Amino acid sequence: MAKAIEFFYDLSSPYSYLAATQLEAIAARHGATVAWKPMVLFAVFKASGNNMPAAVAAKAAFMMKDLPRWSQQYGVPFQMNSRFPINAIKPMRLCLYGDEQGKAGPVTLAAFRATWAEDRDVTSDETLRAIAKAGGIDPEQALAAIERPEIKERLKSNTDEAITRGVFGAPALFVGEELFWGNDRLHHVEAALAR
Amino acid sequence: MAKAIEFFYDLSSPYSYLAATQLEAIAARHGATVAWKPMVLFAVFKASGNNMPAAVAAKAAFMMKDLPRWSQQYGVPFQMNSRFPINAIKPMRLCLYGDEQGKAGPVTLAAFRATWAEDRDVTSDETLRAIAKAGGIDPEQALAAIERPEIKERLKSNTDEAITRGVFGAPALFVGEELFWGNDRLHHVEAALAR
Repeated sequence: MAKAIEFFYDLSSPYSYLAATQLEAIAARHGATVAWKPMVLFAVFKASGNNMPAAVAAKAAFMMKDLPRWSQQYGVPFQMNSRFPINAIKPMRLCLYGDEQGKAGPVTLAAFRATWAEDRDVTSDETLRAIAKAGGIDPEQALAAIERPEIKERLKSNTDEAITRGVFGAPALFVGEELFWGNDRLHHVEAALAR
Repeated sequence: MAKAIEFFYDLSSPYSYLAATQLEAIAARHGATVAWKPMVLFAVFKASGNNMPAAVAAKAAFMMKDLPRWSQQYGVPFQMNSRFPINAIKPMRLCLYGDEQGKAGPVTLAAFRATWAEDRDVTSDETLRAIAKAGGIDPEQALAAIERPEIKERLKSNTDEAITRGVFGAPALFVGEELFWGNDRLHHVEAALAR
């Protein structure tokens, strides 16, 4: 049976973006699959009692220095989104529709790029269409799908599942029932996959 | 001029211990010096508005899995201290006396080992004496020194300095005025030293 990485993320989380850029290469190195699982980070923070990192001014200032260091380390573009904090509910529903269409990876990576490399407004229909197109799904069908109750429900159930399984921040990765938190733990994810 | 790493830590922080175990090898690789700067993490959390990581139950549960992973990765012993959360004021003053005696590194590492590898009560005179001895300073002189006003003041001024320079958690490392937070950023510290 192929090993699996479950990747719980919120598109509004820049560290989730950083992790996402590395995920397919990690999966390929270990013959693993990736389950892309968007969740609503605000609800996760609320349920766990964790505070939003950017709510602490000194931590937010550190993050503005830290994120470009990882971007340089990974060799991926990064640009702080000028609309931060972002409501990423709509594009996350788009990712779930992408998953239905067998395009979870391409749609999610396109959504992350729009948010964290291109400084786009990911709540606008124009950007949502561009993400769909870049991810290889039909833009108009995607815009209609994100209003479907079962898509909305799936985002909610992913969030509930994450909370139940002990997630308190993003990104959160599982290999089996082992939880890993942060792009800075991807080497621990790899160690778990190698076991 | 030799490059310098300023290492702000609290002995009660297990991630500070993990970083401390790696510090001298990193400094040696880059011809750098280490300035060991104990600070009172509780005061740093209070000033920055950050919450204590272990105050979030799900995060504390993750840490209990995460800390052994780093211990394994670094090849250093780790044992959760059964007295956590720890008041490390006295052993941190001991480290400052060790610094006066030109033994900051050995005393600090001995204090970290007692706390995070040997599950000792670092508030007891017996353990303080053992730390002093292991660090190469006189145990009785050390126990007397930690009551000196200028040693107490130095712990306070380190803490104030950390807060002023943007520290919000431990360990916090500086290369020049660049702040790095966490043992998981040691590779960024090395990149800064290599520039």
